[in-house]
Amino acid sequence: MAKEITGREENYSQWYNDIVKKAGLAENSAVRGCMVIKPYGYAIWEKMRDQLDKMFKETGHVNAYFPLFVPKSLFEAEEKNAEGFAKECAVVTHYRLKNDPDQPGKLMIDPEAKLEEELVVRPTSEAIIWNTYRDWIQSYRDLPILINQWANVVRWEMRTRPFLRTAEFLWQEGHTAHASKEEAIHEARQMHDVYATFAEDFMAMPVIKGFKTESERFAGADDTFTIEALMQDGKALQAGTSHFLGQNFAKAFDVTFSNDKNENEYVWATSWGVSTRLIGGLIMTHSDDEGLVLPPKLAPIQVVIVPIPKPDEALIEKAQEIADSLKALGISVKIDTDETKRPGFKFAEYEMKGVPVRLGLGKRDLENKTIEVARRDTKEKMSIEIDNIVPYVEQLLIDIQTNLFNRAKNYRDNHITQVENFDQFKDVIENKGGFVLAHWDGTPETEDKIKEETKATIRCIPIDAPEEHGVCVYSGRPSNKKVLFAKAY
Amino acid sequence: MAKEITGREENYSQWYNDIVKKAGLAENSAVRGCMVIKPYGYAIWEKMRDQLDKMFKETGHVNAYFPLFVPKSLFEAEEKNAEGFAKECAVVTHYRLKNDPDQPGKLMIDPEAKLEEELVVRPTSEAIIWNTYRDWIQSYRDLPILINQWANVVRWEMRTRPFLRTAEFLWQEGHTAHASKEEAIHEARQMHDVYATFAEDFMAMPVIKGFKTESERFAGADDTFTIEALMQDGKALQAGTSHFLGQNFAKAFDVTFSNDKNENEYVWATSWGVSTRLIGGLIMTHSDDEGLVLPPKLAPIQVVIVPIPKPDEALIEKAQEIADSLKALGISVKIDTDETKRPGFKFAEYEMKGVPVRLGLGKRDLENKTIEVARRDTKEKMSIEIDNIVPYVEQLLIDIQTNLFNRAKNYRDNHITQVENFDQFKDVIENKGGFVLAHWDGTPETEDKIKEETKATIRCIPIDAPEEHGVCVYSGRPSNKKVLFAKAY
Repeated sequence: MAKEITGREENYSQWYNDIVKKAGLAENSAVRGCMVIKPYGYAIWEKMRDQLDKMFKETGHVNAYFPLFVPKSLFEAEEKNAEGFAKECAVVTHYRLKNDPDQPGKLMIDPEAKLEEELVVRPTSEAIIWNTYRDWIQSYRDLPILINQWANVVRWEMRTRPFLRTAEFLWQEGHTAHASKEEAIHEARQMHDVYATFAEDFMAMPVIKGFKTESERFAGADDTFTIEALMQDGKALQAGTSHFLGQNFAKAFDVTFSNDKNENEYVWATSWGVSTRLIGGLIMTHSDDEGLVLPPKLAPIQVVIVPIPKPDEALIEKAQEIADSLKALGISVKIDTDETKRPGFKFAEYEMKGVPVRLGLGKRDLENKTIEVARRDTKEKMSIEIDNIVPYVEQLLIDIQTNLFNRAKNYRDNHITQVENFDQFKDVIENKGGFVLAHWDGTPETEDKIKEETKATIRCIPIDAPEEHGVCVYSGRPSNKKVLFAKAY
Repeated sequence: MAKEITGREENYSQWYNDIVKKAGLAENSAVRGCMVIKPYGYAIWEKMRDQLDKMFKETGHVNAYFPLFVPKSLFEAEEKNAEGFAKECAVVTHYRLKNDPDQPGKLMIDPEAKLEEELVVRPTSEAIIWNTYRDWIQSYRDLPILINQWANVVRWEMRTRPFLRTAEFLWQEGHTAHASKEEAIHEARQMHDVYATFAEDFMAMPVIKGFKTESERFAGADDTFTIEALMQDGKALQAGTSHFLGQNFAKAFDVTFSNDKNENEYVWATSWGVSTRLIGGLIMTHSDDEGLVLPPKLAPIQVVIVPIPKPDEALIEKAQEIADSLKALGISVKIDTDETKRPGFKFAEYEMKGVPVRLGLGKRDLENKTIEVARRDTKEKMSIEIDNIVPYVEQLLIDIQTNLFNRAKNYRDNHITQVENFDQFKDVIENKGGFVLAHWDGTPETEDKIKEETKATIRCIPIDAPEEHGVCVYSGRPSNKKVLFAKAY
């Protein structure tokens, strides 16, 4: 175990903070609850963003950009949405500073530069966007509108943690407008699928797809689809949500269209988003006590070549040759030519940063025409013939990606426990952790009481949950479906 | 001339607004001075961003992300910088809204949620970044730091115009830290070169590289390098700036490092940025009375294929075949299969949107094995053998890119006028427009007076301005260099 980070068993929360810090992903800033995303953390976000952006475009979406600020009168127009976010809004009230006459060199708000109407820093953009869509939509021919935005948003959270919950975060928010309810629901489900595919195929993070209960829905949505992942400490993470917004925003902002029968109707809406929170999920799905573990598809550096005991001309030349061949296959490679640090130090460093494959190239190896391959996920080391190294590494990256997913899926599957009564429920939540599948009577009251007594919430009603008669684990009242509970981030 | 837009001769400013609107680039929003960047405008920005990002990475930079907010106490630390931006700062004072007891359904600021310290929405990020760099830099081994950030910033401008001057805009800001003055200056000049290369090779917009005078420098910089372009109405546009910041921010934020002799020194800094303003420059460099004209390298759609008189199976099949061959060369192609609009309407539409090459594919053409090619820059039409169309279009896109640059450069070169006295100066500024090269005595007083009398400012001291003895065009005092004046956006 790397001496610098806390073990997971010892203190999972501290382990997480240590990884974020020691792998150089992010750090706290001078602004309460806002983080600095450091270059290595941002490089992971760029990989996520590029892949998601590609998937959004492949499903017919285009990007646009809407203002950071939402005038208060627009913000409050959709009442449920406003109510849901009002308590965590950063509000701009003035547009100028001036010299403070009492404190030379200091500035103060210029009271004469008070805004007539306060501006809310967007916590989400439905309001400003639907206010804009009103002018864009007259006829069914103007629909659908399929727009996504990459942006920063601000939610003034009281308890923050890097990536998982920060006052400012980066995300994408899709906002689509449709001529029919069916089409909007289809869109919301399509993006739900896109998120699940991204989580599983790129993050190697298995997810359960489901619906949110009414009390866990997005404020202003008629239905919220979610992907729920399981972290190593047995807590769930809501990793992405896609909302069917009905006609709520169309009604609040008076957005109508004339249909093909020339009748006026309100427009149907969806919105969907994932954020830098995904990086938190990535960390807590794969990493270990030596540091970050990254799936190859999202690793900024997929392969590092370390000359041993130190870089010399022959080693660097050979390393470059291997690197060039790997790069030609689209694999990102770094050759570590730093002469001031020892191989052992470098090995620990790249383990900490989660580089999937490390190649140790030594003088003797060169003579024997072999090279040492270390894989980050299992920490196995192998000696491979240099002539075969390129195809070997190409396949190994695929294997690591698969192995990480399977490992996480095994853990997740072993932590879905069906329970029949509330004692079992409490025992599993308390001692084993993970997801609990249990019958629920469908009332918010029961949901609240279970939360109160166990801190577990309904993560989702799984999309593929079979119809089965049973009784609620808490109230004993009839239920026709098991739902998924867990403590959550 | 398209009937929908104002002619350039008639009213250049209105023509600009018409292009922005009719080409679907942007529109005003409900927030004063903030624009909505529409999908087509944003697609151009994505092309710019991707190319610039590539150039930044090729010169060794990495991306990161710093908070949107700057606590007032940090904002005011570098006094010149603070003074320069204080008058246009959006300020967050509260972090919560609550229900307004007097107006059901309305929200109000919660007076109990007043921030202890006001937060400035970043107008630029030197303060928050240098406050962070303090913890990142101890030794010369930690240097250089070569970081770029893609972000939104807010400057509360009183008179705004889409892209050219908006309260919120998108940009990139590079912030680098160095162990020596020489290295920092080298970095600032390197990025100045990168901007000039991008402007000329991708935007096809010729620029003059120069230094800003002291009064035109970035607030907090020791030297500002600028690229200055000339718009079709004879006004200059500052298109990008790169700043040598000396040790000003290092001193304000106490950022020191121990050098290789183990002595403590302040760190040297640069910053550099370009913004969505470039889209304004792109419009006003190339476009005409029929609409937008885009250089192929930045056109979201490079080639459009319009079946004539309307799409049928044979035409679409042939169009698809041509499109596939073009796409294989990395060329972006759209086939217009809309059956509800006539070719003439479509032609005007793609002219408005500035698509560089339009292919009209008619039934008779198909029989004759020809296709009609229309280039947007010169509006020429040619009939080309279908079998040759792919290499023809590939070369044509290169030719259009070159032609746009040469055309703009001709115009620019014809609008650099050397003057010997102030009457000539005023006459050129008033009647001919463009850049005026004139001797200046080097004092801010003269600079101010010339501005007052003519509205012309010193755009830059050209980097390649030869040493030559002369007398100031205004004061008659000695001067050893001609500098570049113009009215500017």
